Amino acid sequence: MARDANPIEHLIDLMARLPGLGPRSARRAVLHLIRKRAILLAPLAKAMADVAERARECLNCGNVGTSDICPICADEGRANGLLCVVEEVADLWAMERGGTFKGRYHVLGGTLSALDGVGPEDLRIPQLLQRIGAEGVTEVILALNATIDGQTTAHYIADQLEDRGVQLSSLAQGVPIGGELDYLDDGTITAALNARKRL
Amino acid sequence: MARDANPIEHLIDLMARLPGLGPRSARRAVLHLIRKRAILLAPLAKAMADVAERARECLNCGNVGTSDICPICADEGRANGLLCVVEEVADLWAMERGGTFKGRYHVLGGTLSALDGVGPEDLRIPQLLQRIGAEGVTEVILALNATIDGQTTAHYIADQLEDRGVQLSSLAQGVPIGGELDYLDDGTITAALNARKRL
Ligand SMILES: [Zn+2]
Ligand SMILES: [Zn+2]
Repeated sequence: MARDANPIEHLIDLMARLPGLGPRSARRAVLHLIRKRAILLAPLAKAMADVAERARECLNCGNVGTSDICPICADEGRANGLLCVVEEVADLWAMERGGTFKGRYHVLGGTLSALDGVGPEDLRIPQLLQRIGAEGVTEVILALNATIDGQTTAHYIADQLEDRGVQLSSLAQGVPIGGELDYLDDGTITAALNARKRL
Repeated sequence: MARDANPIEHLIDLMARLPGLGPRSARRAVLHLIRKRAILLAPLAKAMADVAERARECLNCGNVGTSDICPICADEGRANGLLCVVEEVADLWAMERGGTFKGRYHVLGGTLSALDGVGPEDLRIPQLLQRIGAEGVTEVILALNATIDGQTTAHYIADQLEDRGVQLSSLAQGVPIGGELDYLDDGTITAALNARKRL
């Protein structure tokens, strides 16, 4: 088999760049896709092209969807003064799977990190401060990961909001030390949300 | 986020059907793809469509490529009477990465299995017997996995070839008990090939 300039080899190389896949699992995945060409490979190609064309970041909260303003931000029933701040879109999705939270979200896009040179302007922190005034937010839940960088970021945001008259809380019960939200089961997230403690 | 009838959700569902990925890693992979839309998602969509259209099984050996007869079968320099029998296409690719073997291959498409009701006719065993005469094969290397089913299959083929005047060998040194070829490093495969023992 000519391994270069070969569309199968090219597909393997691209698949190997997905998180969690290496060259070997990419080869396995591609052989599986070829075996399931009609029911999996062709639909996957179409779904990827569709998402490549239609996916966009919500201009308001940073959620990923197919509209400029995501359905959560567009839902007036969610305009209840409650804002949940998360690090990544995956965390927002994890919260939504919990099904308990009925406010809106704000995706920071990461955490502050002195080591990696990530400052407040590199995250969506200015937009967060702007939204709190514009949307009449009365409570902010800092649902950041229980990591050092996550907690540093939570404290920074808490400092920024000190005189803004909003109630601050953080997820408390159920989030293990060093744990990341997207790894938790939905019930744990719900418990942590219900038992949130004021800062 | 409306999670159904949503192209992003649809893509996650399809990705979760890849071997080695579950719902959670599929979500991670899709968010990664959206972040790398121009350099990864769009090229991957195109590569998948390309492979869906062009991939085919070699009519002679069962290798997967983009032509009816694969480059190995088409290579007259490989018509040296040496045939290596493997279970799966992934094993053929693993042998080729070793770079040592200069004969041709025959992909069985699995192993005999009384438990799963897989008999000789369900594999490419009839085609194997046909090729041995048609291609003037003088040596057959049974490079099957060191599993019970792999070894059962090797013994079955050895019995079938008993009176055909071909020399039989199997990979010997270096293949660990219970080991599968596609998991081995290239050097191990090369060592096992060079030290193959006659049956
Ligand atoms: Zn939004
Ligand atoms: Zn072939």
